[in-house]
Amino acid sequence: MNLLNEIGEDFPEAISFAAGKPFEGFLSLDSVHEYLDAFRARLTGRLGMSEEQVARRVLQYGSARGIINDLVARHLEVDERIRVSPEEIVVTSGCQEALYLVLRALRGRSGDAVLTVRPTYSGLDAAAQLVDMPVLSVDEPADGIDGAHLTRAVDEARGQGYRPRALYVMPDFANPTGRSLTLEARESLLAAAAECGILLLEDNPYGNFGPEGEHLPTLKSLDQSRCVVYLGSFAKSGLPGARVGYVVADQNVTEGDRSGSLLADQITRLKGMLSINTSPIAQAVIGGKILLNDFSLRRANERERAVYQENLECLLVSFEENFPEVHGERLHGVSFNTPRGGFFISVTLPFASTDDILRLCGEKYGVLWTPMHHFHGDGIPRNEIRFAFSHLSREQIRLGVQRFSAFVADHADR
Amino acid sequence: MNLLNEIGEDFPEAISFAAGKPFEGFLSLDSVHEYLDAFRARLTGRLGMSEEQVARRVLQYGSARGIINDLVARHLEVDERIRVSPEEIVVTSGCQEALYLVLRALRGRSGDAVLTVRPTYSGLDAAAQLVDMPVLSVDEPADGIDGAHLTRAVDEARGQGYRPRALYVMPDFANPTGRSLTLEARESLLAAAAECGILLLEDNPYGNFGPEGEHLPTLKSLDQSRCVVYLGSFAKSGLPGARVGYVVADQNVTEGDRSGSLLADQITRLKGMLSINTSPIAQAVIGGKILLNDFSLRRANERERAVYQENLECLLVSFEENFPEVHGERLHGVSFNTPRGGFFISVTLPFASTDDILRLCGEKYGVLWTPMHHFHGDGIPRNEIRFAFSHLSREQIRLGVQRFSAFVADHADR
Repeated sequence: MNLLNEIGEDFPEAISFAAGKPFEGFLSLDSVHEYLDAFRARLTGRLGMSEEQVARRVLQYGSARGIINDLVARHLEVDERIRVSPEEIVVTSGCQEALYLVLRALRGRSGDAVLTVRPTYSGLDAAAQLVDMPVLSVDEPADGIDGAHLTRAVDEARGQGYRPRALYVMPDFANPTGRSLTLEARESLLAAAAECGILLLEDNPYGNFGPEGEHLPTLKSLDQSRCVVYLGSFAKSGLPGARVGYVVADQNVTEGDRSGSLLADQITRLKGMLSINTSPIAQAVIGGKILLNDFSLRRANERERAVYQENLECLLVSFEENFPEVHGERLHGVSFNTPRGGFFISVTLPFASTDDILRLCGEKYGVLWTPMHHFHGDGIPRNEIRFAFSHLSREQIRLGVQRFSAFVADHADR
Repeated sequence: MNLLNEIGEDFPEAISFAAGKPFEGFLSLDSVHEYLDAFRARLTGRLGMSEEQVARRVLQYGSARGIINDLVARHLEVDERIRVSPEEIVVTSGCQEALYLVLRALRGRSGDAVLTVRPTYSGLDAAAQLVDMPVLSVDEPADGIDGAHLTRAVDEARGQGYRPRALYVMPDFANPTGRSLTLEARESLLAAAAECGILLLEDNPYGNFGPEGEHLPTLKSLDQSRCVVYLGSFAKSGLPGARVGYVVADQNVTEGDRSGSLLADQITRLKGMLSINTSPIAQAVIGGKILLNDFSLRRANERERAVYQENLECLLVSFEENFPEVHGERLHGVSFNTPRGGFFISVTLPFASTDDILRLCGEKYGVLWTPMHHFHGDGIPRNEIRFAFSHLSREQIRLGVQRFSAFVADHADR
């Protein structure tokens, strides 16, 4: 994504729908002090630790598995009805490190591969590349992947000599498409994974950001056969600057010299080898936020959720207005999906989008977005692009879509 | 090192010379608040940023290269006379991650290998294992490695079909031996590395902890031909709980599709793939400590340095007393080296040390240490063991060595 960052820096005046950053309006450095104090108060109060013990816990080297695993476990129970023990959780330096560690743990022998829906979060490709693990794509239909797709993909991969270890999937408001899986699709995916003997790597950074009362159960909360490894991020629901994430891995390892141990144990060992332990100071910050919100990050993010929902509505209305439908087709043949939440929508252009066209759009029209080929891992230009609306004001969104429509008008004719 | 941690947990009453942790007596959570405030004050004051901009810098996603690179560069100039630009530095989630990233960047093709002095820091073996990179050992004589050893090792490795990319070395008070390289050895290593066309990976966590006025120049400060990649840790001189380290990589990449770019650029790209960026909150904590000490972590660690020096003297005196020299040989044939600083000494027993013997020593004699085979990467028991004295009181040290001498007396007779 370096290129995209560079394009962003080259056109600082452009309105950027490119970066999927959390909203910044509520960020305050004071909160860090408050969170640290809340974490300290728990250690000295409830756990009866002395100030020296607190200092050691937060400032010395710490456990490779983490120091807030009990708080994360409680949060998962409160917000997601996921019931796991603290030992089944490994706290990591952001969710990206968790993704790397899981793939590194799953890469046992030559031919081991990871499946992913396409398009997918580009961090999956990055982690797999570091681990030297092939990524096998499963093209996702517009209404989402299900168990039948998974079974077919596994059979095909095995036919080609691969051993697919897991399917990477973001069931709620996925990056980059904004898509969500239905409850039926979730259940059929779980059944297919258990049947095929592969894992589901469920990544859930955006699940908090849908409409009130429409929250579907995560795969992990439905998981009866321990086939879901759950990847958790605090970048969107905690604080991006803490860089704290985690993985829930309650599976038993069935092969190699670690056979019989917990996958979380194996990941903890790899975590120690990679970065010793996750900053206990950063963990204390997130731990304090969890504590101050009675273990519910859903509750902690009510204000942010409202912003994202309003931004989403504003973006969709702006698209409706700028690309009106006439005789069943939108102006210039543009189409877009209408997710119920998250940070992203997917827009289809009447022409293929490249990084050069993006650069031109930034320079001449003052608006940026992300060509979808960055999420396909193959570099082939596609007509789809990603619009992120999470960190913009509604004024920026309205103006940005206007600018974008001028760009499309000029280019659709060519 | 999991086994060692477990042994430590099994015998909590034992005096542990096993863990090379920093001294805990001066740790205080209040310092974290002070450091954060100092960093904030610099941004709002000297850099003229608004509170919103500060919040964004510290709490939002940040640059993969880091947000305190200018402060680290200034610190390196003040404390080590190393002159590099902020862009030549990549801030990492602890020095261990830096080590991983450097090896991952250097691993270009099959046969690429890293050389290391033996015994060596076990994190080097861990990082190389994650990267699937062979580690070739260079047995270090008691008075340290020099350029001739390096040239021989490179020739031998090349004769075996390897392409050695770098030599990993800790020139100051090395973990695990406590050894330091003379100025002559440093200069001959630099000449040999330039001559052989390989890099030196200089790891310097303990350089601050020698006697006043005896500080030898780092390899990097002597480096005329950009053959030193410098690995920096803030775990001992900053705060372990921040988990912030860095790498200085001012080399030009000479092969592959990144040819012509800076090695620091390549490492930054890999850092983004592995963990996006290092926690800006944790960086702000370290940045604040650097600022509050006028860029000198040497100055910031005067108290700690005094403790380590007193502990070292106490340990050596205790060994002298418990293993007196008679007719040119110490009691039970024990010997030990006498570093001038750092966290460690190396002790030689009249018998081979295994993890089982360590466990027995912890259980029966109430004292723990580290068998040297953990730093050889081959698991073969050796007569050497490592004693870490950094986090103990002098009372613990005296009592611990007494206990240790009882253990040796019982076992030397067998």
